[in-house]
Amino acid sequence: MGLLEQVRSGAVRPEAALRELETLPFSDLGYANVDHHRELRQGLPEVILGQGKTPGQIAGIARRLLDARQNVLITRLSVEAAPSVLASVPELEHNALARTALAMPNPVAIMKGPPIAVVTAGTSDLPVAEEALETLRAAGVPAERVVDVGVAGLHRLLHRLELLQRARAVIVVAGMEGALPSVVGGLIAVPVIAEPTSTGYGVAFEGLTALLGMLTSCASGVTVVNIDNGFGAAMAVIRMLRVPAGDAT
Amino acid sequence: MGLLEQVRSGAVRPEAALRELETLPFSDLGYANVDHHRELRQGLPEVILGQGKTPGQIAGIARRLLDARQNVLITRLSVEAAPSVLASVPELEHNALARTALAMPNPVAIMKGPPIAVVTAGTSDLPVAEEALETLRAAGVPAERVVDVGVAGLHRLLHRLELLQRARAVIVVAGMEGALPSVVGGLIAVPVIAEPTSTGYGVAFEGLTALLGMLTSCASGVTVVNIDNGFGAAMAVIRMLRVPAGDAT
Amino acid sequence: MGLLEQVRSGAVRPEAALRELETLPFSDLGYANVDHHRELRQGLPEVILGQGKTPGQIAGIARRLLDARQNVLITRLSVEAAPSVLASVPELEHNALARTALAMPNPVAIMKGPPIAVVTAGTSDLPVAEEALETLRAAGVPAERVVDVGVAGLHRLLHRLELLQRARAVIVVAGMEGALPSVVGGLIAVPVIAEPTSTGYGVAFEGLTALLGMLTSCASGVTVVNIDNGFGAAMAVIRMLRVPAGDAT
Amino acid sequence: MGLLEQVRSGAVRPEAALRELETLPFSDLGYANVDHHRELRQGLPEVILGQGKTPGQIAGIARRLLDARQNVLITRLSVEAAPSVLASVPELEHNALARTALAMPNPVAIMKGPPIAVVTAGTSDLPVAEEALETLRAAGVPAERVVDVGVAGLHRLLHRLELLQRARAVIVVAGMEGALPSVVGGLIAVPVIAEPTSTGYGVAFEGLTALLGMLTSCASGVTVVNIDNGFGAAMAVIRMLRVPAGDAT
Amino acid sequence: MGLLEQVRSGAVRPEAALRELETLPFSDLGYANVDHHRELRQGLPEVILGQGKTPGQIAGIARRLLDARQNVLITRLSVEAAPSVLASVPELEHNALARTALAMPNPVAIMKGPPIAVVTAGTSDLPVAEEALETLRAAGVPAERVVDVGVAGLHRLLHRLELLQRARAVIVVAGMEGALPSVVGGLIAVPVIAEPTSTGYGVAFEGLTALLGMLTSCASGVTVVNIDNGFGAAMAVIRMLRVPAGDAT
Amino acid sequence: MGLLEQVRSGAVRPEAALRELETLPFSDLGYANVDHHRELRQGLPEVILGQGKTPGQIAGIARRLLDARQNVLITRLSVEAAPSVLASVPELEHNALARTALAMPNPVAIMKGPPIAVVTAGTSDLPVAEEALETLRAAGVPAERVVDVGVAGLHRLLHRLELLQRARAVIVVAGMEGALPSVVGGLIAVPVIAEPTSTGYGVAFEGLTALLGMLTSCASGVTVVNIDNGFGAAMAVIRMLRVPAGDAT
Amino acid sequence: MGLLEQVRSGAVRPEAALRELETLPFSDLGYANVDHHRELRQGLPEVILGQGKTPGQIAGIARRLLDARQNVLITRLSVEAAPSVLASVPELEHNALARTALAMPNPVAIMKGPPIAVVTAGTSDLPVAEEALETLRAAGVPAERVVDVGVAGLHRLLHRLELLQRARAVIVVAGMEGALPSVVGGLIAVPVIAEPTSTGYGVAFEGLTALLGMLTSCASGVTVVNIDNGFGAAMAVIRMLRVPAGDAT
Amino acid sequence: MGLLEQVRSGAVRPEAALRELETLPFSDLGYANVDHHRELRQGLPEVILGQGKTPGQIAGIARRLLDARQNVLITRLSVEAAPSVLASVPELEHNALARTALAMPNPVAIMKGPPIAVVTAGTSDLPVAEEALETLRAAGVPAERVVDVGVAGLHRLLHRLELLQRARAVIVVAGMEGALPSVVGGLIAVPVIAEPTSTGYGVAFEGLTALLGMLTSCASGVTVVNIDNGFGAAMAVIRMLRVPAGDAT
Repeated sequence: MGLLEQVRSGAVRPEAALRELETLPFSDLGYANVDHHRELRQGLPEVILGQGKTPGQIAGIARRLLDARQNVLITRLSVEAAPSVLASVPELEHNALARTALAMPNPVAIMKGPPIAVVTAGTSDLPVAEEALETLRAAGVPAERVVDVGVAGLHRLLHRLELLQRARAVIVVAGMEGALPSVVGGLIAVPVIAEPTSTGYGVAFEGLTALLGMLTSCASGVTVVNIDNGFGAAMAVIRMLRVPAGDAT
Repeated sequence: MGLLEQVRSGAVRPEAALRELETLPFSDLGYANVDHHRELRQGLPEVILGQGKTPGQIAGIARRLLDARQNVLITRLSVEAAPSVLASVPELEHNALARTALAMPNPVAIMKGPPIAVVTAGTSDLPVAEEALETLRAAGVPAERVVDVGVAGLHRLLHRLELLQRARAVIVVAGMEGALPSVVGGLIAVPVIAEPTSTGYGVAFEGLTALLGMLTSCASGVTVVNIDNGFGAAMAVIRMLRVPAGDAT
Repeated sequence: MGLLEQVRSGAVRPEAALRELETLPFSDLGYANVDHHRELRQGLPEVILGQGKTPGQIAGIARRLLDARQNVLITRLSVEAAPSVLASVPELEHNALARTALAMPNPVAIMKGPPIAVVTAGTSDLPVAEEALETLRAAGVPAERVVDVGVAGLHRLLHRLELLQRARAVIVVAGMEGALPSVVGGLIAVPVIAEPTSTGYGVAFEGLTALLGMLTSCASGVTVVNIDNGFGAAMAVIRMLRVPAGDAT
Repeated sequence: MGLLEQVRSGAVRPEAALRELETLPFSDLGYANVDHHRELRQGLPEVILGQGKTPGQIAGIARRLLDARQNVLITRLSVEAAPSVLASVPELEHNALARTALAMPNPVAIMKGPPIAVVTAGTSDLPVAEEALETLRAAGVPAERVVDVGVAGLHRLLHRLELLQRARAVIVVAGMEGALPSVVGGLIAVPVIAEPTSTGYGVAFEGLTALLGMLTSCASGVTVVNIDNGFGAAMAVIRMLRVPAGDAT
Repeated sequence: MGLLEQVRSGAVRPEAALRELETLPFSDLGYANVDHHRELRQGLPEVILGQGKTPGQIAGIARRLLDARQNVLITRLSVEAAPSVLASVPELEHNALARTALAMPNPVAIMKGPPIAVVTAGTSDLPVAEEALETLRAAGVPAERVVDVGVAGLHRLLHRLELLQRARAVIVVAGMEGALPSVVGGLIAVPVIAEPTSTGYGVAFEGLTALLGMLTSCASGVTVVNIDNGFGAAMAVIRMLRVPAGDAT
Repeated sequence: MGLLEQVRSGAVRPEAALRELETLPFSDLGYANVDHHRELRQGLPEVILGQGKTPGQIAGIARRLLDARQNVLITRLSVEAAPSVLASVPELEHNALARTALAMPNPVAIMKGPPIAVVTAGTSDLPVAEEALETLRAAGVPAERVVDVGVAGLHRLLHRLELLQRARAVIVVAGMEGALPSVVGGLIAVPVIAEPTSTGYGVAFEGLTALLGMLTSCASGVTVVNIDNGFGAAMAVIRMLRVPAGDAT
Repeated sequence: MGLLEQVRSGAVRPEAALRELETLPFSDLGYANVDHHRELRQGLPEVILGQGKTPGQIAGIARRLLDARQNVLITRLSVEAAPSVLASVPELEHNALARTALAMPNPVAIMKGPPIAVVTAGTSDLPVAEEALETLRAAGVPAERVVDVGVAGLHRLLHRLELLQRARAVIVVAGMEGALPSVVGGLIAVPVIAEPTSTGYGVAFEGLTALLGMLTSCASGVTVVNIDNGFGAAMAVIRMLRVPAGDAT
Repeated sequence: MGLLEQVRSGAVRPEAALRELETLPFSDLGYANVDHHRELRQGLPEVILGQGKTPGQIAGIARRLLDARQNVLITRLSVEAAPSVLASVPELEHNALARTALAMPNPVAIMKGPPIAVVTAGTSDLPVAEEALETLRAAGVPAERVVDVGVAGLHRLLHRLELLQRARAVIVVAGMEGALPSVVGGLIAVPVIAEPTSTGYGVAFEGLTALLGMLTSCASGVTVVNIDNGFGAAMAVIRMLRVPAGDAT
């Protein structure tokens, strides 16, 4: 039984847990603390944000983790950095559209039950949706795509309504005016995570307009993550799956 | 036949018309040029923007126009200014919700044909919609209200689809994320004028988020006017009604 | 069994449900569509956003709903509007700090299981937290307060760690730099809903700085709602409670 | 007779039409829903926004549409993507200045009557004007160019006044301070669609200043579309041409 | 002969002048340095910015200056502060529209030659224009008003062209889109000082849109001052009048 | 005697002049109106803004003007465009630092009297200063450089005070916080034109911070032009040199 | 010897100290954690931010602290809240200009050595300077005022140079363009804390322009605090006084 | 004894010192004033900001300084400029990560006492931290790195608490939400200089979000420098080390 579970059950007091966590071994690479026990605390592979790191740094962290037999997910692996990283760490499986790379020495069990729906307003939103899908896959969460169902063609969305209404949660990926989460949020009762993308031009402002629209959505209870943050949207879903359902619903 | 019509027919050259317009009499009140022939050029009552003017200035301009037997529409007549203006110029009919006042010594003919639809997302958008409706009324343009049909309750909008689809043009009034014009624009083929309102809080930013959302709408051909500018939305419709329909549609 | 449940179970096709919903009776008050079946679709009392409505409109909608024996929650009931509304609709119970009023002719069952934690960084964040708590209460969701635990006094937060770690989900309410969700998100694995408030001055920009900080949080999977939107944060939690937990956690 | 026309005439109820539209066949390419009936609903070729799509995706959609004998307009076809797309789909006619490509297997009838005037403030605004012109051409709408008539050289504009005053509608394309629509809007009575461009530097802010200036124009009834959105301006005109003229003007 | 003139003529070296200026007596009121020699250095009455000062502070500074027989101009004298200040310092002449008060114990000679034109786009711009006019008057600079000549009614502006073209310099006061300086700047060759005002609503953004439009004006050589800064516009003119004309014009 | 001078003297009425200007010949290149009489109206070479034009367009306009024996100044001639333009139009003299090119078939007389001072805060501001200097040179206005005298090293500025105080007018070029015009404006009485540059990083925001600082300068009567607009600053000076000095200074 | 000092000397390990701090008693008022040991950790009276708290909450916290014989400083005590708070807690000494109230049951020793200089650009900056001065006084730090020495009157600043150059550190309080810290920072070698104020209008943007100017200051090593945060500026000085001077200066 | 020290001791009056400083020799390179005595006034090597200068200008200034046997620090030496500069001035030692180059012909003594802690939230913040470290090294100030201790992994920070609590001052380098200075500021009593970096994406806005978060930090007395300004953070520390410690701490 994991440490956090012991905390939750009351077997270990939180302060004790925190002190224990402090003493856990982690590797100091000089430029990063590689934390071999993060998986335990977060229930996920170690995630390396590729942006802002050199290919050497990315590969170095990935190698150290894989040597410790941990699963590794790299996000925001740029077109420039990918060849060098993939050559150094051949275990990695590359998803060019999602800009991710994944290695899973410890296979993860596929969660049962209804899938997560990942919905996109347009074709240009696909890379961000793929990042979310790849993250869900790394956590063993089943998901389905619903693509190109922007609100100006309402019949396309209604055509897929059935899938949306049986999903456990819905990630809605949209740029431009970001209206799709409002419409989806009005049609279903489960969580809607709105994921703005930098799709669009002019006053789309690299995703800011979509973000603001989603935050002011007239569909109540929609929550929002940062622009182009497909990884974060998936992580929000993963946190939700740890919530026991209420018994009054 | 009016001067502009003569220009349009070729009877009068534009430069000649412009020179003629320059010599038309107008009254100099010291603080405003009251232009007795504007009605001729724009096909509308003289419009007085109440905001930024003192009650005395508003009443003074209105009185001068009515003395010349012109129709008068006052917009943005504040709660503070209204009693004094209305007392000074008793011909004016007040619409408190719209913050307008109207006097029509020259009755205007009601235009025939299908109405303009004025659609609001929520109850709080009503004052701006009323300003548009009052302006249309002053120009003799028939209009119908469709209220409280925000996109999070799609069935309410679909319930009124028939009216929208037989309208000549649609003014869509919405605050918050401003998604309604995108949905309406996808359902109908006639002009959609998107009118953002300052409804909402937080990052609704006094209507800016709705405005940006409308400008980046995925429904093509939607046009936008300034925040809370119900008068401008109606004026855009009035300009459109002067366009002869194409013969290929 | 409710309509949505029938849809979810496959007993009713979504298109059929949508058509059925369109035909459900609702009252047209002229300024608002009062929807007697919304409770059915969203699992909540009808919610009236007080902001932007006149006291007469608020009371009118509330009265119509209570006459139909529906539960009613009014949010953003201003200090100016409250006395008149409360006088007209005496069934309403007022929470002045939260700026809400609630009437529940149909008592709601209290959900079992661990509570939601509603955490505030400072005393000034209390009104927004109260709005969230009142909304949760209206839905029968148990919740606990953790107040005044801003990150500059880390020991205060750690002192309450145990409660945070046994919560079903955590709503973190903070203004100024909005750092608290990042710290909380790193300590627990369940959902963290970050709720920025307009607390602070200068470049706090009425909550914008907190909002941006929360959206760029280094704790992954934190989601965000609009500034001062305690109601929305609670609604996001309510959506989550409808998600069946995964079986791999 | 088209479906929408049947709706407008009352022959088909809107709900029925909507359901019918839902069942119309469209091709699922995995990354896009290619909709063979959009032309029917919008009266235009299918339009492919090139931005944010790979050359392969653009060519794939275009090929599928042409195989179904539909007209195709590609907008925002970048310098990088154009050669590959044009090589794959040789039917396309390229307009490099407008960044568009067009193929019209079904010739479109040229609409009769006065032309649309497309006016530019400066030479740098030409690409956006060209995008509008190409879109109008694809819809069979006659148009004329009025170039380089910025407000600082008023005589150039007045020199072309006659053309402006006999136009059906005017698209005004301007960057920098975006003042031209205000001046044009004061000289003519038909619709003025203001199209801001990203021309300029410093606080021109990539077109934002022109956009804001156009939205606050002192010429009433001017409407605005997104920055550099020549396609959208033309689409707004096309919507207007479907409006029957009022009989009181 | 004044000190600065001696510097300009070479009779006194600037460093020497600066040191001399440092030793000039000024009164320390605790909350302000009242500088009895500023008039010497700037060629103007001492100017007291009323905004941000208490009525007592304003009156105290004014009294001290008048006791030293200096001319005094108070700007931004609020409606709240004016009665108390005027009661304490009865020498002051109040201009309520301009929000200024002026006392000139030392009469100033009226400058000869053509006037400055102060042009306003609309009636709401008058208070800012009045502040400029009052400042010019305090410096003995003759000026003429040209009011309500916004660019949407071009004939009104052209009607006053003769005056503009014989002015020494033109201050153009405009809110909303701020287009007037561009048009004026294209018609005349002398300096155009663009003065944005906070007139307008929505995306007029309290004058920011006008300011940005003026800074990006397509009429070259237009310069700009802060929003609602009529005093600054007049001061810029006063600086210009110290420039000897070139002999090549 | 030029047309404008006749207008100013009263020999020609403005309306007549305007009509005459409309009939003056100018060449239509399809993409630009080349105006052979602009020099007459503005007292300067024809100026071609290189930005946003193709090398072919720039060379085409320059060639047409030179064929009509007019002086030509090209600004914002990019590093990419320069070689091709210079090869096509060998009469042009290139200033790479200023990004300008100049050809003067009609030599211009050098104006007599004191020079204009062009002051820079740092080395990085030199290109913008050079653009101003090149424009002044094209108009025959003498000028002197004062470089690298930012306010953090006050002694450097005071060292050059004598030159500043005998200048006819001062252009102050500064990026970062843009404080230099405030200090200079307090030391001299002649016009100060503040020219913000995009020098700096972080919250220098590409010159916006300098611009805002200059607009809010505590030195009264400072005027401002757009970011990096050395040409505009020089044009403002040229306009000023047409102002006859007042006789009371 | 205080706990932190023991940590610094190595007598107590930090983790141990943190755990000890967690167990220290503090009073839970329901709406705030009143922390009786904060003085120990921060070397200052407990500070109550008045903004965002009710008079009752402010007085309640102050009373609890004074009952425990702690010193209390209230900041941002509004004009509305002050009378009620002062009536409830008569020990408090009010500084209306600074909007502070202070009670010091434990007198604090006055620190020896040179004073802190608190410099203001104008009279309107005084309230913020006073807040800083009151905070320094509560900590026993000697300070001197240098008022109304804005950069447009350089001689006033140079007149006070001697004081600035013997200060331990300088707090520079300025609104508008915020240039004063750059000039001061170039004249002295000790710390300069730049404190922007909301003084000014138009694009002063409530202090934002001053803030941005200070952050991009060309005087290196200047640090900045939030707008109108006189308390924070003083706290930064207090932190600095805990730094032992280096031995190489 | 240096000039400033004489001023501080009273041996030389400030005005006299300023005049003396004006007469000190410095070399005029045409594009920069190279100031051989700056080291005296600021206690540091001459610093050359590489950004905005050509390689030739950078090398020219560096050579002139080294010829005068002064220490030289180049910051923001771009990847493009570095090879040419380093080839021309072989004395320079390059730090590619920090983008600095340093030559110290006059060795500097290492200051005694506790070190400065330079703390980073993530690996991507390292280059900015390195710039600060290199600047401290050039001034002889000892410093230690604490890397990758972002607030979402609180145990990593607590693990290094001891070092933080014995530091003389702490520079906290963080991007994204910039929360780390708030947490650090609550744990220690010495100065905290918050250094925002442009790390992050979406609404991290190139460091603006981190900057705003740091300015509104709930930990009082934290001061902030410009985004990515590692040099400025170090300079702020160097200024602090000149402050004699108070005797009441």
